[in-house]
Amino acid sequence: MADLTARLAELVGDEHVLPGEEQPDYGHDEALGATPQAPAAVVRPGSADEVAAILKVAAEQGTPVTARGSGSGLSGAARPVPGGIVVSFERMNKLLELDEDNHVAVVQPGITLTELEERTKAADLVYPVYPGELSASLGGNIGTNAGGMRAIKYGVTRHNVLGLQAALPSGELISTGGRFVKASTGYDLTQLIIGSEGTLALVTEAILRLQPRLTQQATVLAPFGTLAEVTDAVTKVVKSGVAPLILEYIDALTMGAITYTNDLQLGIPDQVRDSSQAYLVVMLENADADRLDEDTEKLGELLTGLGAADVYVLPGPSARRLIEAREKAFWTAKAAGAQDIIDTVLPRAALPEFFTEVTRIQQATASGIVGCGHAGDGNVHLAIFQADDQARAGVLEQLFAAAAKLGGAISGEHGIGRGKKSYFLASTDPAKVELMRRIKQAFDPSGVLNPGVLFD
Amino acid sequence: MADLTARLAELVGDEHVLPGEEQPDYGHDEALGATPQAPAAVVRPGSADEVAAILKVAAEQGTPVTARGSGSGLSGAARPVPGGIVVSFERMNKLLELDEDNHVAVVQPGITLTELEERTKAADLVYPVYPGELSASLGGNIGTNAGGMRAIKYGVTRHNVLGLQAALPSGELISTGGRFVKASTGYDLTQLIIGSEGTLALVTEAILRLQPRLTQQATVLAPFGTLAEVTDAVTKVVKSGVAPLILEYIDALTMGAITYTNDLQLGIPDQVRDSSQAYLVVMLENADADRLDEDTEKLGELLTGLGAADVYVLPGPSARRLIEAREKAFWTAKAAGAQDIIDTVLPRAALPEFFTEVTRIQQATASGIVGCGHAGDGNVHLAIFQADDQARAGVLEQLFAAAAKLGGAISGEHGIGRGKKSYFLASTDPAKVELMRRIKQAFDPSGVLNPGVLFD
Repeated sequence: MADLTARLAELVGDEHVLPGEEQPDYGHDEALGATPQAPAAVVRPGSADEVAAILKVAAEQGTPVTARGSGSGLSGAARPVPGGIVVSFERMNKLLELDEDNHVAVVQPGITLTELEERTKAADLVYPVYPGELSASLGGNIGTNAGGMRAIKYGVTRHNVLGLQAALPSGELISTGGRFVKASTGYDLTQLIIGSEGTLALVTEAILRLQPRLTQQATVLAPFGTLAEVTDAVTKVVKSGVAPLILEYIDALTMGAITYTNDLQLGIPDQVRDSSQAYLVVMLENADADRLDEDTEKLGELLTGLGAADVYVLPGPSARRLIEAREKAFWTAKAAGAQDIIDTVLPRAALPEFFTEVTRIQQATASGIVGCGHAGDGNVHLAIFQADDQARAGVLEQLFAAAAKLGGAISGEHGIGRGKKSYFLASTDPAKVELMRRIKQAFDPSGVLNPGVLFD
Repeated sequence: MADLTARLAELVGDEHVLPGEEQPDYGHDEALGATPQAPAAVVRPGSADEVAAILKVAAEQGTPVTARGSGSGLSGAARPVPGGIVVSFERMNKLLELDEDNHVAVVQPGITLTELEERTKAADLVYPVYPGELSASLGGNIGTNAGGMRAIKYGVTRHNVLGLQAALPSGELISTGGRFVKASTGYDLTQLIIGSEGTLALVTEAILRLQPRLTQQATVLAPFGTLAEVTDAVTKVVKSGVAPLILEYIDALTMGAITYTNDLQLGIPDQVRDSSQAYLVVMLENADADRLDEDTEKLGELLTGLGAADVYVLPGPSARRLIEAREKAFWTAKAAGAQDIIDTVLPRAALPEFFTEVTRIQQATASGIVGCGHAGDGNVHLAIFQADDQARAGVLEQLFAAAAKLGGAISGEHGIGRGKKSYFLASTDPAKVELMRRIKQAFDPSGVLNPGVLFD
């Protein structure tokens, strides 16, 4: 270990190799219920070449490597293993280039969404992926293929990263993709690395696709009597062609919790609130204010026709606060004592049937299961309240089984990490898992990249 | 060989194993200049299980397998190798399900774009990838990650395929993705298989993303004095936020050839035509006719301001015929005697500089280089007229080098196949090629899937 520390210090400088036991913050991410694990050392490289050199040394010595951005992940993929090192990208946090002609930003992985938002806003452009936690780093977003509320219009991280530079355990740096939206020039390594949770390569640079920033936005809140009505309305809003920026459902308990926690007054009369089991939140955007007004009106009529108790067009500040409160729903659930959360994804038309199953599981297991989610994408965020570990594992198994039966997958955007691994392995075709293992082997023959994430 | 034929016949039935030497059509695709190669046998499976069983036998015997859809590929990826078999998907050509609630079509790989267009149109939906050749099969589109004119708005095949079923050489069938636009549940095998040109797995089923079909379209044709003005205008049209469905450039020689060949009258006065070196074709679409009119007017003003000699809003039939003629540009180039074509992709803002280089190369090598392309994506289609094989190889080398220097890649949508392999291997970082080889090995340890495509 002393030898490893010395070799790492040669590469990045003494001051950038920190003893792991003195750095408790690097021992966990935000996954609920996981026990923190101090790494052997925290290394803070300042360049892509340093990252590559660190990987080479780690591979030679068989030392596990866990990459870390802001540590805001929710599946434990940034929690190191005993004896392993954490490679923290906190110094590699620059926007390297804002290419306005090609609508592209070139960034280092440690840049936060907050900084990227500020820098692109100044150029009337936007990186349209908003996973909610703005302190998150782009590198972490790439690792988990982060999504968020705007995915219904702009897709998730995968759809907005055009190219990467990445370090391999061999000590080589490769570049993938480019400042263009398409290529048919060999295998798409960009897409393979995105969502691989630090198990294939460490991203040292990313080329992001930017969009023109549309300035006009309107937010509509529609309470419904039942959750089934809300999820049924989702399919019809998508079909209408109104092309929402955001299409979220929030169940009544979650709405109560986030409005209470955030001291949010939405002006909904008591009688409507009391008879509403769930809410649909729809945000529209446009470059043109008149068109936005027309679309908002059309949307309101549609929602009324679909059974909404009422339709509220929220004033700007209320809308912003509701969206912010929704983004913080995880923290609200955590504060309320939720023991776990899931973010399963399924065909959006299967949502009503899935929620019937959720209600059944909730009652059968005497658990609390409440939530909200990106209904337009079929991506459901549920907080699980069940203190008994074994019973809770059973709840998760049943929820994932219900999703799988309806054509879903375990995670829509948080990733598998260490926290959902057992469910992933239990529910995935062994031939597919074996193929993924062989792909892992192709990138990382010595198995040092985030061992224990995805696979055992 | 007799043994192989007998085993294949057991799997698919005698009538679906054809002797290769009697089937010259299966010995080539539409790549220019390639010598046809008769396969040992043509096998026509009727189900995914049959495809998997064929692969298992081929892997056991070490027999090369080349997948074939409609044979309309342009890079030689569907040309078999001596002693190898062709697996033709002509019987697996069904639309299995049109899921209107999830905006999804589930198809077999042999379905043509023509049939998919007809079937989705009846449901007011659209699969928005139009690579031009409507006889092409979806399986072939997936193999090459086919693009086309509408990619600027909807992306290419990669962006519109949500999941796959695929057969591995082990004889296993795996399913990837699902009826949702995002997941973070292990490596994205869907994206890895797309564009792999039949070298990793054989696709037996695909889940396609559909969009609401917008009925209002307008097509604007703008002649410019120079090609540099056209390519400069491209960046500005994209920045304007007008969100075109199509944004193509056509150089004067190509416009002359396609209008002449297709007997197309566009009503452009002689004096404008004589002074125009290139044309921009922009198509807009909208659900609302008034909005379309407004946008068309705005676009016209923008193009005039950018130096267009005039702006023609083409009547529907003329617009359709121009787009069709543009789609057939490959055939026009072939009929005119072009010896090769390329489809290089680069950052769109680099197009003016690239064309300066093209002119230099053309003059230095006494070659003809003319073209058109998806300017909004930076994807340039050039026909090369140079009868001397060695000189032509030099032209291609120089063109690819110029593109690479500007951050481009060899192929935007046709693929590498056999035809562009030497250029791919010469211009790609060896570490990346080696990584791709190891990935290939992970899928296809016996190396039977389309050997000689991408790699030697």
